[in-house]
Amino acid sequence: MYTTDKDRMTEKITAFSKFGALDGGGITRLSLSPPALEARAEFKKRAESLGMSVESDDAGNVYATLPGDEPGLKRIVMGSHADSVRSGGNYDGIYGVLSSLEAIETIVTEKIPHRHPLTVMVWTNEEGARFAPSMMGSGIVLGKFEKEKMLSVAENDGAETFGEALEASGWVGDEKNRLNTDDYCAYFEPHIEQGPVLEEEGLEIGVVEGVVGMVNYDIILEGVSAHAGTTPQSYRKDALKAASKTILDLWEKLGALPGDLVFTNGEIICKPNVHTVVPNYVRFTLDARHKDMGVLAKVVEIIENLPKEVYGCSLSYEEHWGRKAIAFDEGQIGFVEDAVKGLGYSSKRMYSGAGHDAQYVSEMLPAVMIFIPSVGGLSHTVVEYSTPEQIWQGANVLLNAALAADAAL
Amino acid sequence: MYTTDKDRMTEKITAFSKFGALDGGGITRLSLSPPALEARAEFKKRAESLGMSVESDDAGNVYATLPGDEPGLKRIVMGSHADSVRSGGNYDGIYGVLSSLEAIETIVTEKIPHRHPLTVMVWTNEEGARFAPSMMGSGIVLGKFEKEKMLSVAENDGAETFGEALEASGWVGDEKNRLNTDDYCAYFEPHIEQGPVLEEEGLEIGVVEGVVGMVNYDIILEGVSAHAGTTPQSYRKDALKAASKTILDLWEKLGALPGDLVFTNGEIICKPNVHTVVPNYVRFTLDARHKDMGVLAKVVEIIENLPKEVYGCSLSYEEHWGRKAIAFDEGQIGFVEDAVKGLGYSSKRMYSGAGHDAQYVSEMLPAVMIFIPSVGGLSHTVVEYSTPEQIWQGANVLLNAALAADAAL
Repeated sequence: MYTTDKDRMTEKITAFSKFGALDGGGITRLSLSPPALEARAEFKKRAESLGMSVESDDAGNVYATLPGDEPGLKRIVMGSHADSVRSGGNYDGIYGVLSSLEAIETIVTEKIPHRHPLTVMVWTNEEGARFAPSMMGSGIVLGKFEKEKMLSVAENDGAETFGEALEASGWVGDEKNRLNTDDYCAYFEPHIEQGPVLEEEGLEIGVVEGVVGMVNYDIILEGVSAHAGTTPQSYRKDALKAASKTILDLWEKLGALPGDLVFTNGEIICKPNVHTVVPNYVRFTLDARHKDMGVLAKVVEIIENLPKEVYGCSLSYEEHWGRKAIAFDEGQIGFVEDAVKGLGYSSKRMYSGAGHDAQYVSEMLPAVMIFIPSVGGLSHTVVEYSTPEQIWQGANVLLNAALAADAAL
Repeated sequence: MYTTDKDRMTEKITAFSKFGALDGGGITRLSLSPPALEARAEFKKRAESLGMSVESDDAGNVYATLPGDEPGLKRIVMGSHADSVRSGGNYDGIYGVLSSLEAIETIVTEKIPHRHPLTVMVWTNEEGARFAPSMMGSGIVLGKFEKEKMLSVAENDGAETFGEALEASGWVGDEKNRLNTDDYCAYFEPHIEQGPVLEEEGLEIGVVEGVVGMVNYDIILEGVSAHAGTTPQSYRKDALKAASKTILDLWEKLGALPGDLVFTNGEIICKPNVHTVVPNYVRFTLDARHKDMGVLAKVVEIIENLPKEVYGCSLSYEEHWGRKAIAFDEGQIGFVEDAVKGLGYSSKRMYSGAGHDAQYVSEMLPAVMIFIPSVGGLSHTVVEYSTPEQIWQGANVLLNAALAADAAL
């Protein structure tokens, strides 16, 4: 088993944390913004100094490639994204890019033989925080989103379109540079877990088997607004009371499904939302995720069978969107598990609850993700953190898994 | 029994509905705004044409007085307010002023003998929709609010202070014109019910015995925000789930108190209120009202004994304000009940759930209110409505009750 350089890995995180740094920690590094372009320039400089050639595709996705020893073999690719949410942390996305770069730096400096060309990728606009939707760069490459439509997406709180920002960035490359099956044979994406499971269970590595499927609903309760002082309780059709009942009912009914189902009522809107008026309208969201689409079908069935009337209020729902569960490639998972075992790390197989570029890539190439623990389970916050030991261990797993793929494929 | 003129009563409502009229019905007639001043000018013109002398006090409250037949007697006063909430109706407040004016017009045109001077009042800024707090004009007169402090209150969404608007209105009068016990002996306030009880019970008149007491709390649940996809349910401290449970618990516990207790959770704030994030903070309001302060003490006890932790979230509360229950004068109530009986109307004794100027006045003078039904129980909306029959019946009750007081006092 090979290992990367722990200090060098930590230095990479520290160096990139300055691009978009906020007072008091964390970053705001929205896609194609000046700090995001600084980060890309630094990545290019570092990749080229390792002997990699850097190109981009027509969505601005970046591919830095180290030649392999055997001519004619397809590239093994690894990476993630470099943009962040507003007031995000120093690990989400960029860790996958920098651990990949550290794996290559180890291979280069230690002259580790490898047959395949090795590519490190930076996906454009994974977060979607400036230009919706998220996973835009991989979505364009995988045909999830129509490119022309994406180019015309305007930034949140601003006038510039994604197309204009991309053009101005200098990162528009050739469409033929897009990730494809002729030139690439395997994909690895290291990432922070963004949840508490590895930490809570005292594990070092998550071997990610897939990405959960997802359904997304609005649930609406409509009653009658009334004066808080003059309307006896028995006359009321209180939409907030009805929503409260429905939320608890959902916890009870969804809680009876398999324990690894996650569901969230994250947003609630109440009207008129005045302390002296009985609410006549409450809308709340339901986000449910599971690896088994059969379980999500049961979630949908529970929603469809909610009572149409709750405490005199009418109940309705709107389905917003969903996505299918993705299972990663067993061969790729095996390379990661062998690496974990060889390095002596504790681990578990797990599904990703969050969406990642890897889920789109998995439709084209054998793909897998490697999770490292998030301290406190925190992510999308300035205090997002993983220890130097944890980021180093993840890079070590990536290095050995990629080399195993290099030997086997 | 005397009766007022039904068509004339209806004409008054129609005429005043144009001051601040909105397209599609209803009015916005904020205190001391141009439409409110137009309404005051029209009131003054009509009062003077009936032989009344119009004066105002230092809070802009208006007093239009018809002389009585017997020198040296104190005035009997009746009235309400002429301002509205934003997008309010044509009855709340102004009905009390115009039914009083109609009673006087009947006395004048039918030359009904009366011993006491009879005064019709227009209170300034009852709604508090432009300048908080509500019931400002009566609150100043009754010593509830410090006048200098009120004069410096700035309007919502604007720069003008109450003092500046009052000065500009031309309605600033002498402090010695304020309602007082040397010059006044009894107070009547007709008003729409603003609730559904009279209509639901098929009754024509509400004889208002008093105004309920009130407590007002914020209840706060604090959990931990977390990613909707990566955080297993068992790790969550979901403030919205905890708030839902608390709302239903309150309905159960408060519902066990006397059935005429009203309580409302009207406003809810959820943070971060994003559909993919478990809420870490929910605050909601509790407004509870009852005529018996002993019942409200039990409400407070229930709040104080709520569990300090709900589904892993901490529960806390903040008391905002309260007001004592007010019982109106039995002598005044008797005049109203005799009038109702004499006119053959159906009625019930009831408490007002909403606050009214009469509750402050009742601390100075024998006072009472007369309710007429609100169609659909609706108020503070452009569709607020009472029928020509209902507004006429209320004016008839006022006329005869005031004449009974005139004879007895």
